Amino acid sequence: MTTNITLPNQIVSAIRSVIGTETALLHEPSFNGNEWNYVKECLDSSYVSSIGKFVEQFEGELTNYTGAKYAIAVVNGTAALHIALLLAGVSNNDEVLIPALTFVATANAVSYCGASPHLVDSEEKTLGMDPIALREYLNDITEIRNKQCINRHTGNVIRAIVPMHTFGHPVDIAELKVVAHDFCLEMIEDAAESLGSYVDGKHTGTFGLMGTFSFNGNKTITTGGGGAIITNDEDLARRAKHITTTAKLRHMWKYVHDEVGYNYRMPNINAALGCAQLEQLSTLLSAKRHLFKRYQKAFENISQVSIVKEPNGCQSNYWLQTILLNNSVTNQRDIILDSTNEAGFMTRPSWTLMNDLEPYKNSQKMELSVAESLQRRIINLPSSAHLDMDKVC
Amino acid sequence: MTTNITLPNQIVSAIRSVIGTETALLHEPSFNGNEWNYVKECLDSSYVSSIGKFVEQFEGELTNYTGAKYAIAVVNGTAALHIALLLAGVSNNDEVLIPALTFVATANAVSYCGASPHLVDSEEKTLGMDPIALREYLNDITEIRNKQCINRHTGNVIRAIVPMHTFGHPVDIAELKVVAHDFCLEMIEDAAESLGSYVDGKHTGTFGLMGTFSFNGNKTITTGGGGAIITNDEDLARRAKHITTTAKLRHMWKYVHDEVGYNYRMPNINAALGCAQLEQLSTLLSAKRHLFKRYQKAFENISQVSIVKEPNGCQSNYWLQTILLNNSVTNQRDIILDSTNEAGFMTRPSWTLMNDLEPYKNSQKMELSVAESLQRRIINLPSSAHLDMDKVC
Repeated sequence: MTTNITLPNQIVSAIRSVIGTETALLHEPSFNGNEWNYVKECLDSSYVSSIGKFVEQFEGELTNYTGAKYAIAVVNGTAALHIALLLAGVSNNDEVLIPALTFVATANAVSYCGASPHLVDSEEKTLGMDPIALREYLNDITEIRNKQCINRHTGNVIRAIVPMHTFGHPVDIAELKVVAHDFCLEMIEDAAESLGSYVDGKHTGTFGLMGTFSFNGNKTITTGGGGAIITNDEDLARRAKHITTTAKLRHMWKYVHDEVGYNYRMPNINAALGCAQLEQLSTLLSAKRHLFKRYQKAFENISQVSIVKEPNGCQSNYWLQTILLNNSVTNQRDIILDSTNEAGFMTRPSWTLMNDLEPYKNSQKMELSVAESLQRRIINLPSSAHLDMDKVC
Repeated sequence: MTTNITLPNQIVSAIRSVIGTETALLHEPSFNGNEWNYVKECLDSSYVSSIGKFVEQFEGELTNYTGAKYAIAVVNGTAALHIALLLAGVSNNDEVLIPALTFVATANAVSYCGASPHLVDSEEKTLGMDPIALREYLNDITEIRNKQCINRHTGNVIRAIVPMHTFGHPVDIAELKVVAHDFCLEMIEDAAESLGSYVDGKHTGTFGLMGTFSFNGNKTITTGGGGAIITNDEDLARRAKHITTTAKLRHMWKYVHDEVGYNYRMPNINAALGCAQLEQLSTLLSAKRHLFKRYQKAFENISQVSIVKEPNGCQSNYWLQTILLNNSVTNQRDIILDSTNEAGFMTRPSWTLMNDLEPYKNSQKMELSVAESLQRRIINLPSSAHLDMDKVC
């Protein structure tokens, strides 16, 4: 009989049944391949910084993996988004549509361009932007003038839209692309969390003008700190490489920079780590998918909780395993977070919604009822690939 | 008899007499200590990114080395300058005094704050800002209103001054500090190139409100990509740490960010490399000083050329060895650059002056006659520490 067991204890037990009794962080990297070999090779070459073969190799392997024509490795995912937005033409006083439910980097990258985030609601099945609700909202508040989308309330141009693939689960990118087209918006895909996630067999990040990745230590693969921009547009790729490497013109010894550039290139030592990690990606993805199936089974009998599954037609990388509390038990969320963390299992709720953060509290926004609901109900579970790989199943 | 030998050939011979017949880059790092051990330890721990012991250790060792109370490790020197300027209060429409003769990062960091660089001339003995000429200029063009320095030509506030220690040679920082005080300017020291350089026994970077370092691959020590802010002000240090780590408030699982922050932290794997490099610093500095002495001897009989020496009362790290052409032979500069590079010795001229770069061509500026002269006359020589350490002397 489990009926006398509290929900927090049921959840602790379910996690324990999947990953065992040892403590577990939310997400740790796995270094089971050539990580040390490549990093050592990099150190031995003394090319650890802006020059060296691993950056180019990493970029090449990213294009092979994602199917994008071009990849530009940068210092982190925030930098990738910043540059993608700049190159999409986002500038002072523009507005950019971003999900209310996202990591703060999405909003910050918009701010760095002198623009303002404009917050979009989620849909429950993807956790990401809801294209139908967004279209209705844009129909209400915007008008198209000279092929620009004008927010009638503020008078500003809404320049771009940045859908994000939440916890690796693909958003409804095909429908959002139609919305972007209909409202004259540039679409930049925030694929920070979704390396290894596909929509109808096409890699996330390849649907928009540009896509961006993060290789932070908590991601599916890591370069220590790192990110990348991918695109099929040769001119944008060239400009992205140029502007992320201080906009310096090529010359044996002259120092000429033809625009305000950024020092955003990925160091070679970080790219060396990334090359080894990319070799491991398919193994890591299999383990993460298998871990999902085991969590799914462990939670199937806890009626107040559902596990988040990849949307139909999509393949998720299952970056972060996620449960959703039923509305009836959202008041227990913080107790569940406390209980699981006290038991040694690192869990966390979703990010605070952007409009609840001090710097973005006055952002333009649509009604955010689904995002608000999700924010009260999401709990991420320990999700490292090694939690599956360590088990004999 | 050497009178028939051309100047370019004399210079090639002088370099060869110091560093031998093998090709040499301008500056390469030396990894002769615990670089492997610490980077491997970092990989083995799996803490390669934002969490891990090496970042804190690196920051601690930087404070020990420089004598600053606080150090904040960041992703590169440009990021360090950007944040230091923001925290000094530089914002939209401000002007910031920077040397005309500097790497473009100094100007770019000003631009990122929405401010404009205002260009200052050099003096020959330090290659850096000339405090006497600057004072005269500021007396001419500014007035103090409400403890703010107003540029009477533009009406803008000149908020800060960023002296830079060129090629590691200390600028006249004591006198510039007096100018900064007298004209109500915040002083941020761009010590990107001068780790290991001292003025009257006090480390460069510790004279202003904040100082910034670069650990790019071409610097005296490297972290692959990296930088740091140092300061004696506890509140600024706390704010610098906060704003470079996405302005996230500490909490076990809540994601609350209280201002627009940056993803500028140094990854742990890069800090691991830095910890090993700092252990080698005194050895590297001795080698670089010795290399200078050998270059000094090799060039002493070439009358059209002088070698740049640390200013009186200062100790330079001799990051980049530098010769200055006499005015009579500046027309041979590019031939000398071509000849030396063709001989396998990587040399380069100084950076293009900021006012000669497209993005900064309309910058406010004082008369830049010394910087212009230096720009025509500077040639940097191969300067790696190993060029000395490899030799039996």
